[in-house]
Amino acid sequence: MQKQVFILFIFLISVGHLFAQNHPVAFATKADLLKVKNGLVGNQLLQKSYDDIKKSVDKWIDKDVDVPLPKDPAGGYTHEKHKENYTLMFNAGVLYQITGDSKYALLVKKLFVKYALLNPTLKNHPEATSSSPGRIFWQALNDANWLVYAGLAFDCIHDYLTSTERVSIADGAFKPIVDYFTKDITSWFNLIHNHAVWACAGVGIVGVATDNEDYVKMALYGTKKDGSAGFIAHMNGLFSPDGYYNEGPYYTRYAILPFYYFANAINNTKPELGIFKLRNSILQKALNGALQQTNLNGGFYSYNDALKDKTFISSELVVAIDIAWQVYGPNPAYLPVAKAQGKVILNLGGLAISNALAKGKVAPFYPYTPIEFTDGGKGDKGGVTVMRMGSNKNLTSLIYKYSSHGMAHGHFDKLNINLYDNGNEILQDYGAARFIGIQQKWGGRYLPETKTYTQQTIAHNTVTVDETSHYDGKEAESEKNWPLKLFSSIDSKKVQVVAAIDENAYKNVKMQRSIYMIQLPGTVKPVIVDLFRLLSTSLHQYDLPFNYCGSVISTNFKYNPSLASLKTLGTKNGYQFLWKEAEAKLNTPMAQFTFLNDQLFYTISSLVKDSAEAIFTRIGANDPNFNLRREPSYILRTKAANQTLLNVIELHGGYNAEAEIANGAYSSVSSIKLLQDNESYTAGMVTINGKELVIIQSNKVFDTKAKHQFNNGGLNIEWIGPYAVFYSNQIIK
Amino acid sequence: MQKQVFILFIFLISVGHLFAQNHPVAFATKADLLKVKNGLVGNQLLQKSYDDIKKSVDKWIDKDVDVPLPKDPAGGYTHEKHKENYTLMFNAGVLYQITGDSKYALLVKKLFVKYALLNPTLKNHPEATSSSPGRIFWQALNDANWLVYAGLAFDCIHDYLTSTERVSIADGAFKPIVDYFTKDITSWFNLIHNHAVWACAGVGIVGVATDNEDYVKMALYGTKKDGSAGFIAHMNGLFSPDGYYNEGPYYTRYAILPFYYFANAINNTKPELGIFKLRNSILQKALNGALQQTNLNGGFYSYNDALKDKTFISSELVVAIDIAWQVYGPNPAYLPVAKAQGKVILNLGGLAISNALAKGKVAPFYPYTPIEFTDGGKGDKGGVTVMRMGSNKNLTSLIYKYSSHGMAHGHFDKLNINLYDNGNEILQDYGAARFIGIQQKWGGRYLPETKTYTQQTIAHNTVTVDETSHYDGKEAESEKNWPLKLFSSIDSKKVQVVAAIDENAYKNVKMQRSIYMIQLPGTVKPVIVDLFRLLSTSLHQYDLPFNYCGSVISTNFKYNPSLASLKTLGTKNGYQFLWKEAEAKLNTPMAQFTFLNDQLFYTISSLVKDSAEAIFTRIGANDPNFNLRREPSYILRTKAANQTLLNVIELHGGYNAEAEIANGAYSSVSSIKLLQDNESYTAGMVTINGKELVIIQSNKVFDTKAKHQFNNGGLNIEWIGPYAVFYSNQIIK
Repeated sequence: MQKQVFILFIFLISVGHLFAQNHPVAFATKADLLKVKNGLVGNQLLQKSYDDIKKSVDKWIDKDVDVPLPKDPAGGYTHEKHKENYTLMFNAGVLYQITGDSKYALLVKKLFVKYALLNPTLKNHPEATSSSPGRIFWQALNDANWLVYAGLAFDCIHDYLTSTERVSIADGAFKPIVDYFTKDITSWFNLIHNHAVWACAGVGIVGVATDNEDYVKMALYGTKKDGSAGFIAHMNGLFSPDGYYNEGPYYTRYAILPFYYFANAINNTKPELGIFKLRNSILQKALNGALQQTNLNGGFYSYNDALKDKTFISSELVVAIDIAWQVYGPNPAYLPVAKAQGKVILNLGGLAISNALAKGKVAPFYPYTPIEFTDGGKGDKGGVTVMRMGSNKNLTSLIYKYSSHGMAHGHFDKLNINLYDNGNEILQDYGAARFIGIQQKWGGRYLPETKTYTQQTIAHNTVTVDETSHYDGKEAESEKNWPLKLFSSIDSKKVQVVAAIDENAYKNVKMQRSIYMIQLPGTVKPVIVDLFRLLSTSLHQYDLPFNYCGSVISTNFKYNPSLASLKTLGTKNGYQFLWKEAEAKLNTPMAQFTFLNDQLFYTISSLVKDSAEAIFTRIGANDPNFNLRREPSYILRTKAANQTLLNVIELHGGYNAEAEIANGAYSSVSSIKLLQDNESYTAGMVTINGKELVIIQSNKVFDTKAKHQFNNGGLNIEWIGPYAVFYSNQIIK
Repeated sequence: MQKQVFILFIFLISVGHLFAQNHPVAFATKADLLKVKNGLVGNQLLQKSYDDIKKSVDKWIDKDVDVPLPKDPAGGYTHEKHKENYTLMFNAGVLYQITGDSKYALLVKKLFVKYALLNPTLKNHPEATSSSPGRIFWQALNDANWLVYAGLAFDCIHDYLTSTERVSIADGAFKPIVDYFTKDITSWFNLIHNHAVWACAGVGIVGVATDNEDYVKMALYGTKKDGSAGFIAHMNGLFSPDGYYNEGPYYTRYAILPFYYFANAINNTKPELGIFKLRNSILQKALNGALQQTNLNGGFYSYNDALKDKTFISSELVVAIDIAWQVYGPNPAYLPVAKAQGKVILNLGGLAISNALAKGKVAPFYPYTPIEFTDGGKGDKGGVTVMRMGSNKNLTSLIYKYSSHGMAHGHFDKLNINLYDNGNEILQDYGAARFIGIQQKWGGRYLPETKTYTQQTIAHNTVTVDETSHYDGKEAESEKNWPLKLFSSIDSKKVQVVAAIDENAYKNVKMQRSIYMIQLPGTVKPVIVDLFRLLSTSLHQYDLPFNYCGSVISTNFKYNPSLASLKTLGTKNGYQFLWKEAEAKLNTPMAQFTFLNDQLFYTISSLVKDSAEAIFTRIGANDPNFNLRREPSYILRTKAANQTLLNVIELHGGYNAEAEIANGAYSSVSSIKLLQDNESYTAGMVTINGKELVIIQSNKVFDTKAKHQFNNGGLNIEWIGPYAVFYSNQIIK
């Protein structure tokens, strides 16, 4: 590693003298932009995108655009104005290149002149609250956004400016911020984190635009230029070998724009680096991996601190898809996404996509498949699996998360599952508590309830032990370890399975969870079997919530509803936010809870042992500012040392409110049993549609070629591999 | 009236001998269906609709279709099977006519033979709970549904059957139900009510299909055949002269199918009645009025016992639009509706609409306009006004309801308002509590909480006095009176207004409410001023809820949130269902509450007097079966004798979560004052955007030509008509 970096370093010095670039080259080359210009006519989406940009810029021509003294937090005037300004500069720059009309260049220049006067005077922003304060904005991250777009803009008008103007803008507008990043808050700039991706891209693009090789090197290799930080280190460190981004898909979305824009600029100026091919085309894998982690409406899976209204139509994904199309070649999978986006950027990819959309047939959805990601730069820190059955609108997706923590926006959610079906969230992750951009809501920042509730374990569909979150809710501890995948298989259309174990989230309890998604013969929807083993030598309280989305239809047990007053479920670790709407002592051999979501019924059937309770909760307690949505949960509580929870999630029937028809509204599960459960094997039996579904797994031998024999409870079974599924005495594979 | 009926009666006897009809004639004539058949090719929507029907029927050809002994309530097997059967019979009958293939007629005949054996044996349904029990189904209404479709089916296969078969089916399948309706539950059949519309249509269509003039007469004129009941009486009694249906738009939807189907059959057999022209084409007005009372997504306004997921794509509206197109002529306004419906019926209207959709340009939305309806057969029982500004997706609609009660599904909601904006519900009516068709939820019937909560006054955006609903929640009392409209004007694009008074809902309190929707110059969205005068000689508690939909963004006052426990707001009249999430003593001169819904901010600014309180509530208390949605409300509470509430509802700013941009998130209202408020005039002043908006109204002279002078608080104003609106000293009209 050291050696490689050294060789790279020597190589860079040797190519340094080549530097003295034609411009533009960062966003696109002159030749590219000519093709875009010539392609406008007849390519509707490209033309529309161009028209929209032109309209947004033209209204500022001959106007004196305000460059205010930074004052307000996110959502406030100065914040939003500076955001508008960098977008305006970038768009006007591109228009200058496409139209050749100098009024656009002049607009950009005038703004740069103002920034060149303003930026050298700036100290930390008055509303700065983070450890990395900004200058133009409240946080440095936003200053990095500014650098990216302003850099692209400068590159576009480079040749319009005199050399004196170029120097004065580089020194006035850019240098103060670049210096601040690379000399003052160096540790932030050199951190492996999405903020620093933006920072590196910003410094690097400014470097490309202003012919400053020093900036480019710091951007690529960190302030020490030794590869210990910087863009390349980000490409190595933030993604697993299969493109999983450590912070989850919502943040992939955010980071992917600087990744693609800066890589594009580097690709145009240092093609010899082959940046888009690095790590087996890791940027392509990152993009495709993020798209695979969306719901049918394009919404990114909301684990970690995600906001649910963010989808793949966001501008970051427009940029990524359009550049990817250009550098990786045409990919029809992107067309439904591009169609939903309804716009392209004005590069060759945008031109080609616009052309393909006009000509070709577009599938209704991105081609979702079952997919498995490892986490960690080396792929050795757990992972995330998306199990999938069905197709198009009838897709069922279950996300099983056994990844590492995921930095500051990670949640304490080891072995969590989330379920999406028919485009709807069924078992949800709350995501983050935030009203982004809305000043009245804490300046648009992550609300305190993100830490105190949404990140806590009880907000997730996994077990909380003794009302304490995983790793006691300590991020630093949680970063040190991750679950271990025991076995998985997601290639079959009949049985998909993932099993993982966590031995670190709690000191005295090991958690082993296996999720089986099974398509039974003759049925429409898969059934999900959830085998959750809790191993301990001491007595604990185990709470397993199902954060269901939908309306309560029925239970097969009596419960005590809270009628005239409500109390909280607990006092800490997220429990203080939950009202207890009802509770039940479960004494039936099987507890069933059915809810309705949109057009389908869902039933959770649970094996009940002696001490089990069911609790219906609702978010809302201790929320004085109405920051949290009033979402429900169904929590199964048991008290034991060793305990194996066996739950079956059915997706059943159909409801058409328009036609007033409900069918299959009742569960088909009539019994659940554990046939055996010890360190060797766990075997469960579910009677469904009157037939026996048997799931048996090895708890210690995970070799896919190992032979197993099981003889118990009337079953005498042989099979190969860590698990087997039988239905009506037939093996299902 | 008596005389007219008598003449009609004589006329009918004289035309009776003409009876001996060609068949089919009820759904459509042979000639019509030939045109439909010939029109299939090239008319995509018609072809698709035909294909869908054919596919649904073909799978039953040569199968033995079950006609089970009635046993289950709605949602259960026998209920759903009999529903399927009548649809199957009707569809197969139409297919027989179009294709000429006798296999379809045979399928229908076989089913009729089974029903002819079953029906004579039936007593009241074992699950019957209503006062009008059914035989095939749990309630007679569903038996009426069966008659309508089975009648249409019989008509289609009339000529396929031998005369012996015809007699045996008429006597076995139809007569027991018709007799039951017209001899046993006569008072139900003769009631003016949507159930009886179905019953009359059923009996009448069976009459047309089986050449039974006696049935047709009872259907048209009631069992006494004197016009005191029956279909014509429904056309007179259930609609106001401008087509408002007494039970509200959700029920118009339900009743409109039998109205159109039976009218169509009568039109084909007794054209001399000119049934579609009756009361100035009242059935056309009813259809158009129902469509005007939908949200942009087609959802019927949810006042009275409505379910929110019912839209104009429902099959009833497909039938109505397609018949209307045929009998009233082409109407492009229906095309966006037909496009959303995605199907047509196989009649001439369906053919023509399919053709028009293929050829013509279709507007994005039904052409919504401001509209005013009277209520009551003579138009003298109050009414409903829909004020509207904006267009297409940016439409703002405010429904002001001052109608009569609306029968058993009416709510205690005098002077209620509901607000829709940009296709979203902003201030909602809960509608009904019901999971229609879902057996686990009380057999799919209206849930008890419909009476105990959703019909109660506190569930509405109008005043509850002393925690007691209007008319003390007694339907019989509420049916006796209705509010009086004082003045209104909805033609302007700048100012729309409706004022009404209610003197009967409470013994000691008169309620006068004026709603002004005002488009201020230079603004995007209208502002709404709500002037609610409460007149009494004794002290009362006045609660005015705003059942807002959205997320709490901010208040300009401090409140005490309920943190660790919740109590109910009250103990009866709906109050027992509301948790008190927060409360505030208001001591500012103006209270402001801002919430976010989708992409817009909404602020309610309220004039505050001494004793005012604000209460944030949430539905959910005393709801042991989770029958109610957990919706919020913002309730303003005052204690006084005379009290005038002055509230301003702003629709402001914009929020784009995808782009993370919020603008105009703050209210523009800086003060609210009452300049005068007595029996002569009420004058309010709102400072908005730093300018003065003055609204002044006469409280006793409503003549549109009367001159008024007002001299008070520095204002010296003259105007003509019951109200005037000034902004920045300019009158707005």
